[in-house]
Amino acid sequence: MKLATLRDGSRDGRLVIVSKELTRYQLAPCAFPTLQSAIDDWASAHAALSEAVNQLEAGQGHPFDAREMMSPLPRAYQWADGSAYINHIELLRKARQAEMPAGFLVEPLIYQGGSDSFLAPTDPILAESDSLGIDLEAEIAVIVDDVPMGISAQEASEKVRLVMLVNDVTYRGLTKSELAKGFGFFQSKPSSAFSPVAVTPDELGDVWDDSRVHLPLCVDVNGAPFGRAEAGVGMIFSFADLICHAARTRPLVAGSIIGSGTVSNKFGDQPGLPIHEGGVGYSCLAEVRMIETIRNGKPSTPFLQFGDEVKIWMEDKMGHSIFGVIEQKVLPYGG
Amino acid sequence: MKLATLRDGSRDGRLVIVSKELTRYQLAPCAFPTLQSAIDDWASAHAALSEAVNQLEAGQGHPFDAREMMSPLPRAYQWADGSAYINHIELLRKARQAEMPAGFLVEPLIYQGGSDSFLAPTDPILAESDSLGIDLEAEIAVIVDDVPMGISAQEASEKVRLVMLVNDVTYRGLTKSELAKGFGFFQSKPSSAFSPVAVTPDELGDVWDDSRVHLPLCVDVNGAPFGRAEAGVGMIFSFADLICHAARTRPLVAGSIIGSGTVSNKFGDQPGLPIHEGGVGYSCLAEVRMIETIRNGKPSTPFLQFGDEVKIWMEDKMGHSIFGVIEQKVLPYGG
Repeated sequence: MKLATLRDGSRDGRLVIVSKELTRYQLAPCAFPTLQSAIDDWASAHAALSEAVNQLEAGQGHPFDAREMMSPLPRAYQWADGSAYINHIELLRKARQAEMPAGFLVEPLIYQGGSDSFLAPTDPILAESDSLGIDLEAEIAVIVDDVPMGISAQEASEKVRLVMLVNDVTYRGLTKSELAKGFGFFQSKPSSAFSPVAVTPDELGDVWDDSRVHLPLCVDVNGAPFGRAEAGVGMIFSFADLICHAARTRPLVAGSIIGSGTVSNKFGDQPGLPIHEGGVGYSCLAEVRMIETIRNGKPSTPFLQFGDEVKIWMEDKMGHSIFGVIEQKVLPYGG
Repeated sequence: MKLATLRDGSRDGRLVIVSKELTRYQLAPCAFPTLQSAIDDWASAHAALSEAVNQLEAGQGHPFDAREMMSPLPRAYQWADGSAYINHIELLRKARQAEMPAGFLVEPLIYQGGSDSFLAPTDPILAESDSLGIDLEAEIAVIVDDVPMGISAQEASEKVRLVMLVNDVTYRGLTKSELAKGFGFFQSKPSSAFSPVAVTPDELGDVWDDSRVHLPLCVDVNGAPFGRAEAGVGMIFSFADLICHAARTRPLVAGSIIGSGTVSNKFGDQPGLPIHEGGVGYSCLAEVRMIETIRNGKPSTPFLQFGDEVKIWMEDKMGHSIFGVIEQKVLPYGG
């Protein structure tokens, strides 16, 4: 099942069911007007929504346009973002001249993100200045059902209800000073944007395995291929591990979103190569800037400037877009 | 106006209006079934709720019992907690052997808290073990209306819709290792509990001034007076400052909760004295343990153990409870 949230002027939008090929949508039954309302009562919702799926398959519905969609959850009760790709952790710590955290192979890194105001998938990234070190972070994210405190990783794997993509926008110019204060990210993480469509794990078939998505994550910057990193490779903690870690000391309410962290692959034992050198590229600019610094003593790729465009999507093995495209332009706030 | 959320079996409970003296309540009109729905459309809600206030003043309504209440927002879209009391910052950094953050007098400290599963004001604190260094943190918190990105502190002062108390439970045994990882608090902050009642700033009269509450915050531990710190003293950043900081790079959605951090007073130029020595005491155990360490080389007051009880409340100048009482017992999870 594929779900999206139609912009209707309300804060939470209107839940719709989207056809497999992302061409048509049907309104969800009135009992489940929003995605949160469906996640709140997933068993009932899943049955009710399945009927709309049948209507779509019978050719009914309206033309689907990602620009009419909000993030699947326009506001959520929780956004807990991991950093599960070892290559990303290593490169970013080097970039910040920070040490690798103790126990990083034993215990996941997770930060509590802001979840109250997500951008729509085609909303611009509005910044007060493009000197903030504006970076994309292309990731996978899951929406979970209610998760009891103290759940095991094995049980946690059964709690994933929906999978989607996210651009976890980061202001690199603020991270170093903010993290040095010891309280984690806040101003350095403006609003994130999620893919137009969230899908149930069964939609992914056998590429959803071991609580990971085994497909490349596609990232273009200003129309040029920037990243095709394999999301199933180098993810040292699975979504089940991340959920288990997040729920150690408190329950997670249904509708909580858990992120993978920036998808990132090594090239053999080395950090990945750019796409034009035959590598899989990157899912954030900080990584390529660190590679450039290692090679040349300083970075040459700039962070995002006003007018720059980012596209993030994922294709199935037939080359069809699974989640629709996150497509954002960086623009001045108030401009 | 005083508002609370009656436990009715639903996730968000039922919004009720509470009499000034906290003796009776009346259901809010059906158009505003939950506190979030009222905050989503505050101007309309405020007018509609005022009618119920008149009914209460005419003697109608049901007997109010804090044990039937959930936290005013049982789940929220944001919980951003500051650390605005200079004395608390100084003592806690000493306790963690951490340096004072750069610019701590210029820029507020705020961490992104988990907002998906708040405890009711009389719910137990359920922990997997009482060797986690379980601590209370008694604070003031406000619920804001929609706050645009980049708001000034002066404008931010107009965005406070409701004021309440919070017990921001902290596992001190996990903070040092978790903060060392650089991503802020997560497992070290289990679910917080808020006061039974949230009140509009005008209910506070002249003790709401300069975006601060100028009254002592009362804390008892196991029935003994533990803290009577003056919430208006030593708060180096006001709620307006905290909101302004939180909204620098992204908007805050209506219903976002902003916390003051642990209320904490100095005694002249020195950290405060315990109540039995004539001081105002403390709003968390870590502070008294640090004082003991400074005096005697090691702490003698234990963190909370299973069976321990915490009470947090605030009285107006006539000695009447304003927000009701947070009253929690520490119990083993699953026990």
